Amino acid sequence: MFNISIIGLGYVGLPLAIELSRYFKVIGFDLNKNRIKKLKYGIDSNNDVKFKKNHNLNIFFTSNLKDLKKSDTYIITVPTPILKNNNPDLYFLKKAFIDVSNLISKGNLIILESTVYPGLTEKLANLYFSKRKGLKINHDFYLGYSPERINPGDNEKKIKDIKKIIASSDKSSLKKMNIIYSKIIKAGLFKAKNIKIAESAKVIENAQRDINIAFVNELYKIFDNLDIDINDVLEAASTKWNFLNFKPGLVGGHCIGVDPFYLTYLSKQKGYDPKVILSGRKVNDSMHNFIINSSIKKFKSCDLNPKKMKVLLLGFSFKENCSDIRNSKIFNLYSNLKEKINKLDVYDPYVDKNEVLKTYNLKIINTLKKNYYDAIYILLSHKKFKNMGYKKIRSFGKKKCVVYDLKNVFLKGNYSY
Amino acid sequence: MFNISIIGLGYVGLPLAIELSRYFKVIGFDLNKNRIKKLKYGIDSNNDVKFKKNHNLNIFFTSNLKDLKKSDTYIITVPTPILKNNNPDLYFLKKAFIDVSNLISKGNLIILESTVYPGLTEKLANLYFSKRKGLKINHDFYLGYSPERINPGDNEKKIKDIKKIIASSDKSSLKKMNIIYSKIIKAGLFKAKNIKIAESAKVIENAQRDINIAFVNELYKIFDNLDIDINDVLEAASTKWNFLNFKPGLVGGHCIGVDPFYLTYLSKQKGYDPKVILSGRKVNDSMHNFIINSSIKKFKSCDLNPKKMKVLLLGFSFKENCSDIRNSKIFNLYSNLKEKINKLDVYDPYVDKNEVLKTYNLKIINTLKKNYYDAIYILLSHKKFKNMGYKKIRSFGKKKCVVYDLKNVFLKGNYSY
Repeated sequence: MFNISIIGLGYVGLPLAIELSRYFKVIGFDLNKNRIKKLKYGIDSNNDVKFKKNHNLNIFFTSNLKDLKKSDTYIITVPTPILKNNNPDLYFLKKAFIDVSNLISKGNLIILESTVYPGLTEKLANLYFSKRKGLKINHDFYLGYSPERINPGDNEKKIKDIKKIIASSDKSSLKKMNIIYSKIIKAGLFKAKNIKIAESAKVIENAQRDINIAFVNELYKIFDNLDIDINDVLEAASTKWNFLNFKPGLVGGHCIGVDPFYLTYLSKQKGYDPKVILSGRKVNDSMHNFIINSSIKKFKSCDLNPKKMKVLLLGFSFKENCSDIRNSKIFNLYSNLKEKINKLDVYDPYVDKNEVLKTYNLKIINTLKKNYYDAIYILLSHKKFKNMGYKKIRSFGKKKCVVYDLKNVFLKGNYSY
Repeated sequence: MFNISIIGLGYVGLPLAIELSRYFKVIGFDLNKNRIKKLKYGIDSNNDVKFKKNHNLNIFFTSNLKDLKKSDTYIITVPTPILKNNNPDLYFLKKAFIDVSNLISKGNLIILESTVYPGLTEKLANLYFSKRKGLKINHDFYLGYSPERINPGDNEKKIKDIKKIIASSDKSSLKKMNIIYSKIIKAGLFKAKNIKIAESAKVIENAQRDINIAFVNELYKIFDNLDIDINDVLEAASTKWNFLNFKPGLVGGHCIGVDPFYLTYLSKQKGYDPKVILSGRKVNDSMHNFIINSSIKKFKSCDLNPKKMKVLLLGFSFKENCSDIRNSKIFNLYSNLKEKINKLDVYDPYVDKNEVLKTYNLKIINTLKKNYYDAIYILLSHKKFKNMGYKKIRSFGKKKCVVYDLKNVFLKGNYSY
């Protein structure tokens, strides 16, 4: 049977490795030695997978590439972030292809799960396997693509419950992919015509979410200008049978706010400027400033002087019920608001405080003082915030305190004063 | 009980008048004398409502304003189109408010169903009832807004099946609106907080559809550049549980392609440039040119010389199974394609040929010749086209003939040759 190596053990690779290890021999590889050490003890610092009890799984964690040598199947699940200029950052991806190129032997199957733009999987295989190593596709090696559809923080839709696309370089390897993935995916597999179609499908899925959130974010801006509460408007509109219930918000993280740039990068290279997608990205990437301006206006209308205010931000990760702090737009909100405010605290019981300090040079506070803040921003609908209840959260504010509830966790509108 | 006048008997007013007339005394008014004459005989030239059999309904059709004098309730259902510069064209709306201002007597209720931007209903009432006639709102007259959600060409979702928003200037008139509409709407009513919220909800509903179609239209352009079939990509992406199944297409008609401009007009006036919505409008409004360029490219790749080609367009109305030709983008496609092609015919069994001739100076052909065309564009998924079947449609083409199927009625991709 298959001897599978997973390259990259983050939000995508770890759950995949665990599921596959129930049926196959699995080697889990990550560059991060500290992460491997913890995983060996059954600790996932992402808090994403509870697998201590399954510690008897057939899975070997390593950060030594040599350990992967015996594998016949390599699944690459490395991050594909963007650079500061929003162009694709292919560092991890290229490194993974180079690493694998030094490992593969005849007949091996290499599958990519990371989000890329159409054509990139084959391009990298051609570059690093064929040109560099002289290996011929569908002869010396086989190439597959199966985009991850993991939904971090979602405890109901786990990997097995989400239909998965598979595509491969030839029929025989597609058959192999089918055997591997059908073991773990209960929701079914979809065989795409070719690798490019599978890459394209993945990259548009998050772009569609992004543009829909951008649309309601733009509405939020329009209606704020008109002194109309966007929440009332969305509530009324959603009584139409085909209205789509998206909510305004900050679009951070490593998927929705990032994937569209992979598509727009390629599109621009090929001569088409994708204005719809890019205008959506622009609106979403500037929402933190809109929220700041809107709330500063509110403070002033409540006779509060920002320069004297103590303010609390509740939530820091990029998404509710999730510890992931990568590309969290709350950091952008924090740094811009900090300049306008006397004292600004951030509280988030989900995130790793040391990681936040290391990554953002920001100290997440440990405890909340009662009767202390002039304003409280509830920025994420973390379950732990919901369980706290509004009364408790409100108690951290002074008698006069503005509460801004971005996600309407407790308030029907966005503000209470 | 209520004595209701309906002002404007188009796609919105006529079905509404018919439904209301089952429970109330209804007077149906339209400026178009010809339309009134036909309606008196039970003929709806829109083919939208089959009401001959209900000819014994309690409804009086007129184009004489005097006949409306006895009404206590006026429902305005006039078109709200746009001008050539895409700004709102309020001609019909203003005329309706002026007409009603000359008719109303104390305590009357005036309800608007047309799509407007937030604030316009109250603004017009203030202008034409209060300032011009000295009437006081909630004293001399009452004002309501209940946006239409009619879906022309949809035989399953009729007026009674679609949940309806109601909003009014005070509680007593909201109660009245509730009595009136709850008689005919079986899907339930939603009471919006106020008229502005109801106006806002309506105007964003179609804007959301517009941006979602614009997104897939933009994808169509991107993937066409990459030689990837958008249909394959959408098929694969739609295997994700939350992917939204929108299809590329021409966005014409009097709703989706028009309503967003009402919102963007107001937004720009208030200082916010709504780039997401407007970039979507731009993409949708230029799709006919993209289709032309893409197909000309295809013709050339098939060694066909456009200058010598005979081409057939199937479909002319703005939407499938619908006779409405207002703002049909197929006309734009027709006029631009005509310049590049030897002979261009249009066939559509749904539209009123005289109306097309009058409005667009275009002669819709009556019969189709076999073995005649070098290319056939299937532009709408009219039921009558579906019933014809692909073989029959293909038979109008020469042995070598390009078929372009925009909506994938018959083909899985867009082209067959």
